Amino acid sequence: MDGEGGGAAAVHHNTRSPEDVFRDFRARRAGIVKALTTDVEKFYQMCDPEKENLCLYGLPNETWEVTLPAEEVPPELPEPALGINFARDGMIEKDWLSLVAVHSDAWLLSVAFYFGARFGFDKDARRRLFTMINNLPTVYEVVTGVAKKQSKAPNGSSKSSKSNSKVSKYLWLKSKYMLPLVRCITSC
Amino acid sequence: MDGEGGGAAAVHHNTRSPEDVFRDFRARRAGIVKALTTDVEKFYQMCDPEKENLCLYGLPNETWEVTLPAEEVPPELPEPALGINFARDGMIEKDWLSLVAVHSDAWLLSVAFYFGARFGFDKDARRRLFTMINNLPTVYEVVTGVAKKQSKAPNGSSKSSKSNSKVSKYLWLKSKYMLPLVRCITSC
Repeated sequence: MDGEGGGAAAVHHNTRSPEDVFRDFRARRAGIVKALTTDVEKFYQMCDPEKENLCLYGLPNETWEVTLPAEEVPPELPEPALGINFARDGMIEKDWLSLVAVHSDAWLLSVAFYFGARFGFDKDARRRLFTMINNLPTVYEVVTGVAKKQSKAPNGSSKSSKSNSKVSKYLWLKSKYMLPLVRCITSC
Repeated sequence: MDGEGGGAAAVHHNTRSPEDVFRDFRARRAGIVKALTTDVEKFYQMCDPEKENLCLYGLPNETWEVTLPAEEVPPELPEPALGINFARDGMIEKDWLSLVAVHSDAWLLSVAFYFGARFGFDKDARRRLFTMINNLPTVYEVVTGVAKKQSKAPNGSSKSSKSNSKVSKYLWLKSKYMLPLVRCITSC
């Protein structure tokens, strides 16, 4: 294991750089993107609402799995959203996939920064890690096709924000999840 | 509700800015910091290992609560680490508080960016949100006192990274959580 300069060997042995953590993030993200795009039929079938509460995991080897949550509590890592299978048949499929994507993005970020904290990242290291992460489209953007719109928009963020807002509105306004979120964030 | 410029009224009604989401983040973070610092005795007592699996929530009104996880699955928002009370008596108290802090930081970030995705944030909006978040010390840094060391270090990141690495090593090497994490991230 490579270290990052002077200090005890034990510290270097257990320290990772933002680039290391980003590689883990990118691999997990790749696995989840597969689940929600190229493997979506298989993913859909595995998310049987008749089964127990399932989670979608992206793994460091760029694969994905749908399985029960970690048995150990508290878990070793932040856990993905629980019970994604229960919402499957209560929503339009593309809305459900978008919901899973948004939760997956949140989980990927939490895992990356959990690693960052465990490896002693300071403010600058966190910034570096986030910059690398933010240079990739989110899983949500990939799944909804927003990633393609953003790369074509001639006038950067304002147009893509509106595009994203309209996509979000389309996907969420009729979802039972949207109104509680608006109330939740309004109350702060 | 204020909008952010032209477009359909419905879009504006349900759109929030990075500053709005950051305010929610900051308030939740403040609640959690209280739980792990000024209110730590009460927090400790509430995390009874004899109870069911409990979570620490930071609320948008700057308060905290220790309670059972959301009943609804999948949940409306990303959930905090489950069962923090089960680890309480198996660790040195300050190690346990640090573990809770690290999980809390991961949760706070996941909630903020989940909101960001639901409100259609593009890359630049995400960057703005993260910058505001990253300008605050993490809960972990506050709880372990690293926040004070970083503000005093004359030569910014390199020294604070080593300080953080040593704090991390001290806290985690003897924790059963550390070795699986190292193996986990090594395999990517």
